[in-house]
Amino acid sequence: MSKSIFYHAGCSVCISAEHDIIELIGKDNVEIVNIGEDRTRIKEAELAGVESVPALVTPTGNALHINFGASMSDVKG
Amino acid sequence: MSKSIFYHAGCSVCISAEHDIIELIGKDNVEIVNIGEDRTRIKEAELAGVESVPALVTPTGNALHINFGASMSDVKG
Repeated sequence: MSKSIFYHAGCSVCISAEHDIIELIGKDNVEIVNIGEDRTRIKEAELAGVESVPALVTPTGNALHINFGASMSDVKG
Repeated sequence: MSKSIFYHAGCSVCISAEHDIIELIGKDNVEIVNIGEDRTRIKEAELAGVESVPALVTPTGNALHINFGASMSDVKG
């Protein structure tokens, strides 16, 4: 199975969700990307359908928005 | 590890998220509860912190709200 990608922006809601996701699906099965720090990946996240963070993009390409930390426009600032 | 519980209400957003969650964490690791049909479990979901469905309550007790299908007040009708 290819990896999921968990996009976050370092907010407290994001960090809490990150811990849950790693616990649930295993750290080897998910790449963690902080788009607040690695801004070169914001475009990739948007193309994957990410509208807010934290969000998990599954290997099948679905974007699951988890709780609500920040909108993409907040991240872009 | 004890099971997670995935609460949903049969909406299309819920069903799509259900498939993703089962794929990600494995069907043996999650109990699926349709609180639209099994209304006796609405109270339990609310006590677990579920504010909208679909939502995944982790073994550690955190409620992860996934995308947005329906609010609890919509489910209660």
